[in-house]
Amino acid sequence: MKSPSLFPVQLNHLIQSLSRLPGIGPKSARRIAFHLLETPAEQARELVDAIQNVKEKLKPCNRCAFPIEGELCLFCDDDQREKGQICIVEKSQDILSIEKTGVYHGHYHSLGALLSPLDGIEAADIRFYELMQRIDQGNFSEAVLALNPTTEGEATTHFIAQALKEKGLRTMRISFGLAMGSEIEFADGLSLARSLSGRIDF
Amino acid sequence: MKSPSLFPVQLNHLIQSLSRLPGIGPKSARRIAFHLLETPAEQARELVDAIQNVKEKLKPCNRCAFPIEGELCLFCDDDQREKGQICIVEKSQDILSIEKTGVYHGHYHSLGALLSPLDGIEAADIRFYELMQRIDQGNFSEAVLALNPTTEGEATTHFIAQALKEKGLRTMRISFGLAMGSEIEFADGLSLARSLSGRIDF
Repeated sequence: MKSPSLFPVQLNHLIQSLSRLPGIGPKSARRIAFHLLETPAEQARELVDAIQNVKEKLKPCNRCAFPIEGELCLFCDDDQREKGQICIVEKSQDILSIEKTGVYHGHYHSLGALLSPLDGIEAADIRFYELMQRIDQGNFSEAVLALNPTTEGEATTHFIAQALKEKGLRTMRISFGLAMGSEIEFADGLSLARSLSGRIDF
Repeated sequence: MKSPSLFPVQLNHLIQSLSRLPGIGPKSARRIAFHLLETPAEQARELVDAIQNVKEKLKPCNRCAFPIEGELCLFCDDDQREKGQICIVEKSQDILSIEKTGVYHGHYHSLGALLSPLDGIEAADIRFYELMQRIDQGNFSEAVLALNPTTEGEATTHFIAQALKEKGLRTMRISFGLAMGSEIEFADGLSLARSLSGRIDF
């Protein structure tokens, strides 16, 4: 795209900054930049304040890494939750998705990333030792691994499952297979293979 | 969505602010908010600075409304451009798209919006009187209307074309019809009808 060179430098900088956000391509970045340029000043200031507040006031929960203002998040600080269960996820957003199902009531641990040796992401980079420490200090009896069914997710699942089993926890993982409401005829081969190999007794 | 209530209030505010940007739905807003939360502080600061710079330093060109730092934009301040031609567009981004074609070398006028009586957008709201003033003070002989082929665009085109003709300008509009590379068999009826009614002599 050579067109941005026609823009004032400030607008180009904003477009570049916006392009670095996830899911924002060059066209969306341009559209949003023009919107911010033309929107009333107080609306732009509101966004700026919101970003600054999040950066200044929030930090990860000491235990599970869910973003909070204080020390412990609403999950870790909740006496009503199953004390013996811990669910391991990649990121805080996944905690929200699991909470919405309403079928899990235990504790969480967010890794922040998945193992990816090619990208230099190893055990020390994914809050793995923090997890081990929590297991050692806590009273957990059951762990549920809920990581994405990708190469990195599988590798991380197997790595952590091994470590948890050695600690004596009942270690489980979420199941994968056909999506509810989907049709076998049109299912992708991998999901169908997974749902066959993962078949369960009635 | 009831899930955001699980978030700290600062994160909710950021998600709400981001949702107001064009093309950003609730899911994207959540994803971007978490990205900003987790990104290094200097990257978030860079975005904040970029927004503030755009809001503080840029304003619309006195003549055509293209965003600039000084008084006149690079189009209005360019002696090499066709002095007699003016192209009327809805917004500054459209100027860029037209510039990229390389076939127009005249001046521009950005309306900022299209007439939409139902939304209360009338002539005074679309830089129409500013256009009339430019025509009166300038030396324009030819106007090209380049507004979107929508209900509002058509209404605005006809309204402005009438006024420009009364000022004695040769008043033209961009053509609409089949997109280049498209197939007649699969063309939508409106575009095909438009390309038939707009047929031109060899």
